[in-house]
Amino acid sequence: EQSPAQGTDTLDIAVIGGDGIGPEVVAEGLKVLSAVTAGQGPKISTTEYDLGARRWHATGETLPDSVLEEIRGHDAILLGAVGDPGVPSGVLERGLLLKLRFSLDHYVNLRPARLYPGVTSPLAVERVAPGGIDFVVVREGTEGPYVGNGGALRVGTPAEVATEVSVNTRYGVERVVRDAFRRAQGRPRKHLTLVHKHNVLTHAGHLWRRTVEEVGAEFPDVETAYQHVDAATIFLATDPGRFDVIVTDNLFGDIITDIAAAIAGGIGLAASGNINPERTAPSMFEPVHGSAPDIAGQGKADPTATILSVALLLDHLGRGEDAARVEAAVAADLAERGSAPRSTSAIGDAIAARVG
Amino acid sequence: EQSPAQGTDTLDIAVIGGDGIGPEVVAEGLKVLSAVTAGQGPKISTTEYDLGARRWHATGETLPDSVLEEIRGHDAILLGAVGDPGVPSGVLERGLLLKLRFSLDHYVNLRPARLYPGVTSPLAVERVAPGGIDFVVVREGTEGPYVGNGGALRVGTPAEVATEVSVNTRYGVERVVRDAFRRAQGRPRKHLTLVHKHNVLTHAGHLWRRTVEEVGAEFPDVETAYQHVDAATIFLATDPGRFDVIVTDNLFGDIITDIAAAIAGGIGLAASGNINPERTAPSMFEPVHGSAPDIAGQGKADPTATILSVALLLDHLGRGEDAARVEAAVAADLAERGSAPRSTSAIGDAIAARVG
Ligand SMILES: CC(C)[C@H](C(=O)O)[C@@H](O)C(=O)O
Ligand SMILES: CC(C)[C@H](C(=O)O)[C@@H](O)C(=O)O
Repeated sequence: EQSPAQGTDTLDIAVIGGDGIGPEVVAEGLKVLSAVTAGQGPKISTTEYDLGARRWHATGETLPDSVLEEIRGHDAILLGAVGDPGVPSGVLERGLLLKLRFSLDHYVNLRPARLYPGVTSPLAVERVAPGGIDFVVVREGTEGPYVGNGGALRVGTPAEVATEVSVNTRYGVERVVRDAFRRAQGRPRKHLTLVHKHNVLTHAGHLWRRTVEEVGAEFPDVETAYQHVDAATIFLATDPGRFDVIVTDNLFGDIITDIAAAIAGGIGLAASGNINPERTAPSMFEPVHGSAPDIAGQGKADPTATILSVALLLDHLGRGEDAARVEAAVAADLAERGSAPRSTSAIGDAIAARVG
Repeated sequence: EQSPAQGTDTLDIAVIGGDGIGPEVVAEGLKVLSAVTAGQGPKISTTEYDLGARRWHATGETLPDSVLEEIRGHDAILLGAVGDPGVPSGVLERGLLLKLRFSLDHYVNLRPARLYPGVTSPLAVERVAPGGIDFVVVREGTEGPYVGNGGALRVGTPAEVATEVSVNTRYGVERVVRDAFRRAQGRPRKHLTLVHKHNVLTHAGHLWRRTVEEVGAEFPDVETAYQHVDAATIFLATDPGRFDVIVTDNLFGDIITDIAAAIAGGIGLAASGNINPERTAPSMFEPVHGSAPDIAGQGKADPTATILSVALLLDHLGRGEDAARVEAAVAADLAERGSAPRSTSAIGDAIAARVG
């Protein structure tokens, strides 16, 4: 078990700025982390890891085992974004990002969606009454179609066959479903929606469904619902207020959390935690957005998603009050944002000042 | 090869009304089909097939082989909706709907998304300038995660493992990609977007990507783009005007066509064709919505999606002018719809009168 970091000792953060706007937004996240812990909190100690497209171009390495082992020794990981158009598709995704999630057993991929006052949704106003979007997606992070169990035969010929295998285990589904029930139980509405496609993906779907039913018996006060993934996207676009906690598989979660981000004001605000709830390894916090090479180095990136990811980090490490202060500071900043653009560091400064 | 039905002889339509609101909306589709072909067109001959939840409850049958063979002898199939809450998940989907799509080689699942004047989108007005949503999704219909190649081990025990295998072939991907390019070439913007997730589903994704590149060489005037499925959903919610033709796999297509339906005014307007472009078997036309048992038999269902599916049927059978008349009649009806609800048959009557 890692240090729970609830005392006033040191928080050891492994920092992976990554590529593009990654390092810029991570700098603001760390600024806010320092500000909220200044004085009364733990000391923040950071170790920067040079991982991502730049390292791959220079050395061909994605995540050497020795680096993974060093990272394991930290209390948490803060990641910006990795990738650039010069790296072949899949290399950094499988070799770095998913390798971290799988090796460190981040089975809860936590993605809150909340429409803050002052933020404009692409949905029509009557769809999103104030407070009308406030749910959290618990996306499974270590199974499903993401396991990399695929292959291809006769590649490049007219007889090519390519397969992708979604692997789902009772072990893996049960633990994430239980985590989602716990989270639902801790929220005022106590409502959990399973999103899957059990009418077509019958084997995996029935495993998910049975598991929700059986684990649900431990949480009699939590109400459950089910939506096929296709129907869920309709409700996300027409009536997002119906959702409280959603639990779903790795791929469906990837898709619906991007819709969730879009309707809650955009990917610039969407935070995520890749969580190992038992803390057998450090959890990883990252904005949902990518490295946006087109605006890198210009101080234009919005660091808000990273700062909200820092709030998730604090919460995971048992510092719920600090997390709440960061979130409140972000909410206050968002409420007062005009249309005049501010630089990455100006936004970080403003939020840091509010938590300080 | 089936009768191309371009002359003035008979159009043999296999009709599967199905369950819930299915028979009601199909009746209006047939009403409009008769009206548009009256006088100058072919004779319409229909054969009703009793398939769906009712038959399954009564006999345990989903789609007997003899019925499938009879259906094969028709020029096209018009389907309403099948299913009710009493049928276990997957039984009618795998045993009837997908069995029809797979047996009759409906490899092009065609789903247009168009926001008609007078129709309200759940998106904010500035996202959907008039004419701002007008694209078509070409969803692969006979491969991918829908093939039913999954299984489960140690079901009901803590050691359960359930798999779902997505099977993708060059044969299957190439033919649907070529169809999508042809459709893109026939549209003013000549733009085709591949939607996949090739950074994670690397084997299938790279097959799709290479195929789009290679088939694209035959269509030098068509511009292509690529979006990961998660990013595509963001654009569907924020900037749907960017899409012209989308080609994608069976599961991604299922998901994004429901979002497409939502942003274009709802599932009550979303038409689809399950098309066998070579006409080696009849194609099947159906609204995207389900059987809606809660409003069945009340004359409340909107038959518009079915009527637009009839337009796709006419177009597929080489009767493009009739198809255009049906679509224009629907557009005119939608433009004048007030907020006062009309019955299913009143909507059908109004549209039939306009095409007559
Ligand atoms: C980059 C990619 C591998 C990743 C995913 O698919 O999980 C991303 O889309 C995300 O949602 O964090
Ligand atoms: C009912 C179901 C099998 C079907 C599908 O997943 O294809 C439906 O959602 C659709 O989109 O036509």
